[in-house]
Amino acid sequence: MDLQTIRVELQASPYPVIIGSAALLSLGDQIRGLGFKAGTKVLLVTNAVVEAHYGASALQSLSEACLDASTLVIEAGEDQKTPATVGLIHDAAFARRLERGSLIVALGGGVVGDMAGFAAATWLRGIAVVQVPTTLLAMVDAAIGGKTGVNHPGGKNLIGAFHQPRLVLIDPSSLATLPEREFRAGMAEVIKYGVIGDPELLAELEASGPQLASLNTLSAELLQRILVRSAAAKAKVVAADEHEGGLRAILNYGHTLGHVVETLCGYGTYLHGEAVGLGMLAAGEISLAMGLWSASDQARQRTVIAAAGLPLAWPALNPDAVLACLQGDKKVREGQVRFVLPTGIGRVEIRSDVSEATIRSALASCA
Amino acid sequence: MDLQTIRVELQASPYPVIIGSAALLSLGDQIRGLGFKAGTKVLLVTNAVVEAHYGASALQSLSEACLDASTLVIEAGEDQKTPATVGLIHDAAFARRLERGSLIVALGGGVVGDMAGFAAATWLRGIAVVQVPTTLLAMVDAAIGGKTGVNHPGGKNLIGAFHQPRLVLIDPSSLATLPEREFRAGMAEVIKYGVIGDPELLAELEASGPQLASLNTLSAELLQRILVRSAAAKAKVVAADEHEGGLRAILNYGHTLGHVVETLCGYGTYLHGEAVGLGMLAAGEISLAMGLWSASDQARQRTVIAAAGLPLAWPALNPDAVLACLQGDKKVREGQVRFVLPTGIGRVEIRSDVSEATIRSALASCA
Ligand SMILES: NC(=O)c1ccc[n+]([C@@H]2O[C@H](COP(=O)([O-])OP(=O)(O)OC[C@H]3O[C@@H](n4cnc5c(N)ncnc54)[C@H](O)[C@@H]3O)[C@@H](O)[C@H]2O)c1
Ligand SMILES: NC(=O)c1ccc[n+]([C@@H]2O[C@H](COP(=O)([O-])OP(=O)(O)OC[C@H]3O[C@@H](n4cnc5c(N)ncnc54)[C@H](O)[C@@H]3O)[C@@H](O)[C@H]2O)c1
Ligand SMILES: [Zn+2]
Ligand SMILES: [Zn+2]
Repeated sequence: MDLQTIRVELQASPYPVIIGSAALLSLGDQIRGLGFKAGTKVLLVTNAVVEAHYGASALQSLSEACLDASTLVIEAGEDQKTPATVGLIHDAAFARRLERGSLIVALGGGVVGDMAGFAAATWLRGIAVVQVPTTLLAMVDAAIGGKTGVNHPGGKNLIGAFHQPRLVLIDPSSLATLPEREFRAGMAEVIKYGVIGDPELLAELEASGPQLASLNTLSAELLQRILVRSAAAKAKVVAADEHEGGLRAILNYGHTLGHVVETLCGYGTYLHGEAVGLGMLAAGEISLAMGLWSASDQARQRTVIAAAGLPLAWPALNPDAVLACLQGDKKVREGQVRFVLPTGIGRVEIRSDVSEATIRSALASCA
Repeated sequence: MDLQTIRVELQASPYPVIIGSAALLSLGDQIRGLGFKAGTKVLLVTNAVVEAHYGASALQSLSEACLDASTLVIEAGEDQKTPATVGLIHDAAFARRLERGSLIVALGGGVVGDMAGFAAATWLRGIAVVQVPTTLLAMVDAAIGGKTGVNHPGGKNLIGAFHQPRLVLIDPSSLATLPEREFRAGMAEVIKYGVIGDPELLAELEASGPQLASLNTLSAELLQRILVRSAAAKAKVVAADEHEGGLRAILNYGHTLGHVVETLCGYGTYLHGEAVGLGMLAAGEISLAMGLWSASDQARQRTVIAAAGLPLAWPALNPDAVLACLQGDKKVREGQVRFVLPTGIGRVEIRSDVSEATIRSALASCA
């Protein structure tokens, strides 16, 4: 399949998202195509699982393009997304004598992408980074847009920086080894793009039915289209609002309540995408209760989430705890909880007038 | 004396540098004037020495302006400019529940400014910072321009970010308690501005003669003019080249060779400004050897550096070590050492064609 390119049209630093099977084999050439000269130092950051599957291909592509690459393997897992891990990447950057013109390549899921991205943002006050996401979630979301996050003992992603990549390279064939549960979780973000802004994408997801739940049943063509449309959706929002001043908030659809699920159930009980699926369902219930959208649209959303094999039933959480957690959420502005609420398939509104009673009744409908 | 304002004319985020005696007492009002509402959380970061002298005034001004301020005292000293100190500021930001709309105020020298600035750059992906410099060096250089740096075991300022302050507030009266040697070191950066771009400033420094060497002998009017002209010089270069793509390199005048002195003599032997003074003298000798400027201009530069009470004689360094150190400097591009060389009082050029022999002979003239 040919490679397709979506451009993230930022004024200061536009960059391409290149998508297609075997894209990984072109990594080195694509980097040279950006203007990096032969001999440029490249620090490839990855974790052991991803390294075992794709490290050799990536390194070979970099070497064949005459880039001076070496690998740093960090530990896998959300609990490694710490300042200490950033320190290890900085140490490697120093040991390899990375210069202003050098490059860090992140090969892995969102954890590797965030760690390598933040380390690049803060080494020599910012060196170039290329994102090569290998999870569905990272492909459609984390790798695009320049947000990087590091966890603080007080909360997820409290530390971070905006640092746009120079290139995002998405090779769908690297999903072959991804655990199915991770794949399904990533699909929640794809569904999100459909609901917030792309009715055609949502229709296509609906049409494919339970195929969605596994890479094995999804055609390569459909996967490619999903990746391209998702990247395009994210690119459009990012280009309009690079630093999350306004519009970008719509990407938080499903995330405010999803975050509550993640927090109250303990990180790890639900994968992020699973919690986002639950959050979208709850946001839909709020919309329904407020008369903002129809029961049939909520049913469509629910059917797609079900087809993707994502959980549908909210965990048994104490509503008081949910409300307290919402108040503590960092998306809160001046005491008002802001919700991204669907008003139709492909349309959302940001509302801060959701009453406590509405939230309680929506939660009851979700159980 | 009235407050004077210099604007740093950045497209995305212009900001004022406010200069004048008793400016500190207006800190809270100035912050409110930027649009921060009553009740905004402010984390005042300082060190124990500065806190003892100016902490109460700063806090009082913040409280009187109805800002919700509290203080974090970090340890003084260059050896505290570490990721661990950044972590302490992040911990305080969390403990105080700083939000996107909150503010960090840096009250102190360049170390406090860099630490607080970097912590602000990386908390919640960037919250506002106000710089209140209390050393001459920080007033004329570190606090303006948005560069922040954190030391890595491998070298100074290897970690960092660009993060422009929302306001720089300079109160010359806070220099009253600064050790004289620190004051003189800061004067080296003032002389730098004269040589690289402001012949009138240099003439004024010349005219004031040995007054320059101490705050006690300098008139308040001249100090104010020095601060205003230096801030204006820095602001102009920063506005033209926010991220050090080109022009901003001229601010490194005296720094390439100064850095060698700092490194080879061990950090702490010479203060940064003292090393910069030596670096300017050596750069002048290189210019002289290359026929780029005159012996009389070099003599003028030397006289002003002497009047400021700065060291004039290079330490006895092995020239081979100096050359090796220059090669390892991060200002090196593709193997060529780039020097900022004076071509007249108020004019510099960036050259990467300085031969090893020229460097050796310039060093010999400096001893
Ligand atoms: N920066 C952003 O804009 C942004 C957006 C969304 C999420 N995130 C962050 O991303 C992280 C979640 O990302 P994630 O879901 O990719 O998790 P992850 O990076 O932890 O990857 C999930 C698991 O899959 C493994 N893995 C990755 N690729 C694989 C492959 N091709 N084959 C086999 N195993 C593979 C990983 O080793 C890991 O165990 C969170 O930390 C989140 O905060 C960031
Ligand atoms: N970010 C930039 O653009 C930039 C530019 C230049 C230098 N810097 C950094 O700045 C640092 C040097 O700054 P500095 O020279 O201000 O050093 P500093 O911050 O260490 O201050 C020097 C000493 O003076 C004390 N002090 C500060 N103000 C005082 C006052 N009013 N009265 C009494 N004592 C006072 C401090 O406690 C300290 O002991 C270096 O780390 C350097 O890398 C940054
Ligand atoms: Zn998400
Ligand atoms: Zn300096």
